[in-house]
Amino acid sequence: MPKGVKMEKYRPKIHFSAEDYIINDPNGLVYYNGEYHLFHQYNINEQIYWGHAVSKDLVHWKRLPKAIAPDKIGQIWSGSAVVDEENQRMVAFFTYSEHETKRQSQGVAFSYDKGRTWEKYSGNPILTDSREDFRDPKVFRYEEKWVMILSGGDCVLLYESKDLIHWNQISSFKGNQESHTGVWECPDLFPMIVETTEEKKWVLTVSVNDGSPAGGTGMQYFVGEFDGQKFIADSNQEKGLWIDYGKDFYAGVTWNHVPKDRRLMIAWADNWQYRDYLPTSPFKGQMSCVRELKLVQKEKKYILKQLPVKEMECLRTNKHEMKNIKMGADEEWTLCDKKEVLELDISYPIEKIHAQTFGIKISTGKNRQFEIVFCKEKQCCFVDRTTAGVNPHDKFAGKYKAPVDFTQEFLTIKLLMDVSQSELFINNGEVVMSNLLFPEDFYKVKLFATGGDLVIEKSIIYEMDEIMKHPLDEA
Amino acid sequence: MPKGVKMEKYRPKIHFSAEDYIINDPNGLVYYNGEYHLFHQYNINEQIYWGHAVSKDLVHWKRLPKAIAPDKIGQIWSGSAVVDEENQRMVAFFTYSEHETKRQSQGVAFSYDKGRTWEKYSGNPILTDSREDFRDPKVFRYEEKWVMILSGGDCVLLYESKDLIHWNQISSFKGNQESHTGVWECPDLFPMIVETTEEKKWVLTVSVNDGSPAGGTGMQYFVGEFDGQKFIADSNQEKGLWIDYGKDFYAGVTWNHVPKDRRLMIAWADNWQYRDYLPTSPFKGQMSCVRELKLVQKEKKYILKQLPVKEMECLRTNKHEMKNIKMGADEEWTLCDKKEVLELDISYPIEKIHAQTFGIKISTGKNRQFEIVFCKEKQCCFVDRTTAGVNPHDKFAGKYKAPVDFTQEFLTIKLLMDVSQSELFINNGEVVMSNLLFPEDFYKVKLFATGGDLVIEKSIIYEMDEIMKHPLDEA
Repeated sequence: MPKGVKMEKYRPKIHFSAEDYIINDPNGLVYYNGEYHLFHQYNINEQIYWGHAVSKDLVHWKRLPKAIAPDKIGQIWSGSAVVDEENQRMVAFFTYSEHETKRQSQGVAFSYDKGRTWEKYSGNPILTDSREDFRDPKVFRYEEKWVMILSGGDCVLLYESKDLIHWNQISSFKGNQESHTGVWECPDLFPMIVETTEEKKWVLTVSVNDGSPAGGTGMQYFVGEFDGQKFIADSNQEKGLWIDYGKDFYAGVTWNHVPKDRRLMIAWADNWQYRDYLPTSPFKGQMSCVRELKLVQKEKKYILKQLPVKEMECLRTNKHEMKNIKMGADEEWTLCDKKEVLELDISYPIEKIHAQTFGIKISTGKNRQFEIVFCKEKQCCFVDRTTAGVNPHDKFAGKYKAPVDFTQEFLTIKLLMDVSQSELFINNGEVVMSNLLFPEDFYKVKLFATGGDLVIEKSIIYEMDEIMKHPLDEA
Repeated sequence: MPKGVKMEKYRPKIHFSAEDYIINDPNGLVYYNGEYHLFHQYNINEQIYWGHAVSKDLVHWKRLPKAIAPDKIGQIWSGSAVVDEENQRMVAFFTYSEHETKRQSQGVAFSYDKGRTWEKYSGNPILTDSREDFRDPKVFRYEEKWVMILSGGDCVLLYESKDLIHWNQISSFKGNQESHTGVWECPDLFPMIVETTEEKKWVLTVSVNDGSPAGGTGMQYFVGEFDGQKFIADSNQEKGLWIDYGKDFYAGVTWNHVPKDRRLMIAWADNWQYRDYLPTSPFKGQMSCVRELKLVQKEKKYILKQLPVKEMECLRTNKHEMKNIKMGADEEWTLCDKKEVLELDISYPIEKIHAQTFGIKISTGKNRQFEIVFCKEKQCCFVDRTTAGVNPHDKFAGKYKAPVDFTQEFLTIKLLMDVSQSELFINNGEVVMSNLLFPEDFYKVKLFATGGDLVIEKSIIYEMDEIMKHPLDEA
């Protein structure tokens, strides 16, 4: 057996992972010149770099050499990047975790070669503060200026600049008290057109280090107005809504300068509760899929919907399909087995759901099972990974719950199952649950219904190609 | 409740039935001027007529007034019809069951108005014999003459004629001894091009009154050569092969003059064992679907394949579909329920069949079930209607067996389920099993596999439209 093969057992096949060492937050997300850049926190023996990869399609990633290295000032923590058209360069903003002062400050670097090499600005750091938490700058264009949003721990701080170097604070935002179950990190702020309208709203996202619905770290968002100075959440959206009800979706941010105004987010598919305990090697950490965000009005709120970018469909190979099939009460159907990676798309006409519970059971080994259970009566979904395989940490096993709307015509499910990651998109991404898992065997996918029958309007399982067939080819 | 509705409970919806009274053998099958004619034995209080219907598509039938009535010579038993282009008329050949002599003889009638009215030939009967069984003339064109094949009881007799009136015997055919488990009836003889070749063979079919695989009446065929004088079965096909392994497919004959050389057969979906006991009213008897025949070479024999004519696809409505789905061991899946009429098309990759038995269970009421069970190891199929519903006669209940080839890439199944008739076509019609049933409730269709798993390459259930929405409209 070639060296490394066994330990690569949990290497994801349709999600980005680094060749080795530890990754966490995605950084410097920017589209430039035909390439989507994905930088990321890269912890190499406790030296924190920005790792780097590029993609032309948001699906297949080419790993590139490390982009920004720690220096005499400090480690290179999270941040963002923009394209400075005027000076024909990319500009990266990152947080220094300063060696000497232990404080957090913001630094800048420039690239004149499409992000391959970076020169740090000689005047770094460009922005300092006395706050203990002062990090994760996200810079974006707003009309004739630049705006930076960064975390102040219990709030986000907004700055403006004309030259990307000199920044003045313009406002801050806190949301309501309930939105602070942990330190805020990795903020983002972006405009969205409300689906099927011409209305523009602004969405502010934060990653909250602790207290998420599934436990540990998670992400929230607020929807409101931004006038270039101040973000004001709509009065009924001052309490953040959870972006993901699973346990493993954190530090998500969106790309700058994406064509056609698409709003694309990627996150670190992990949780700080157990980052260092994952049973993978030589790499630790993986990204979520890239998700396209939409904003819709639902009842009186604006809510985000997330789905994997359409580009991912190129990975689909063999297809397992059902249409307009009735499933009898207490039946359990094996639809396919021995799969490592798959996409499952199901829709159920809600009126015809007479089952008490129903959903998907994915066998992951002998007496091992990953379960997704819906309950129409309780209007919710549970994802249970308690017995899904290796539980590398005492906070890893668990059963997570999300509210689900059963008042529409169809309940729709999209599930991406990678080697060690699951992403469940309910009702076209209205509710999402992302969870790592470490199965003991290939997946066997079953559908089930208990206590009553139901109709499957459509069920499609796609087997999927790997996105990185040659992980060692870093060209 | 409108008069008659209850008693019409078992009226088929995708098969021809007469408005009332008793039907049996199809007669006078001929295509003329855009219409397919279906005459049939029509027993009205023991007076035997030819009933009549026409169709433009072999699917939707328009009932017409009775065509040929019994007369002072005798009852009008089975026969055939041809188009006499030269005289611009249709000519029907039937058997007289003579009142006085009790003998069987052949009569002729002419129609100059597309089969609506008939004049009997004044010189009837045109053909007599001392044989006790001497009936069911099938006339067809052979080069510059006409040929008649008719039953002689333990053989078929062949005659030739130039004018359709004067007939001379040219030969007879008997097959081997094993082919005579009962009296031969309703013969047919027609040429076929062997699929994917240019080879022409002749197929001779007979209905055998007793001793069929499922018991009672059934049909056999022989394949060989016919030179205009004599039919000679190939030496390895002197023993007839069974056309249908079910209990209810009898007196089948084929249409004359069908465009594009298609060979189309229809049969009476019944068995003489219990014709008079069927729990239907005011009609008794129904036809099979119209089947297109193909001749293929398999190992060293030529075998018939039968499938419902493609035209029947126009009846398909709502679709229930699965593709490339694995079914786990000992699973049982309800695919749809509350259906009266449906078509089920399934294909299984044979290599992936690890189940000991598998197939289709159709629930037909409380503790009532119609079962189709395949066994790869035993290379066979069972159709079990023992508990499928009303058993109107002690010879009705039963479990029937057919040999099935499991050496091909796929096992394919096409099943037509009408209100009171099932037609199962295995391996593209290589093996067919047709059986009446009288369910107590609508159909609930389940697939099952025991003792191992299998893959369903494709499963499609179509709900189907009725062919005669207004049975009283005889226009």
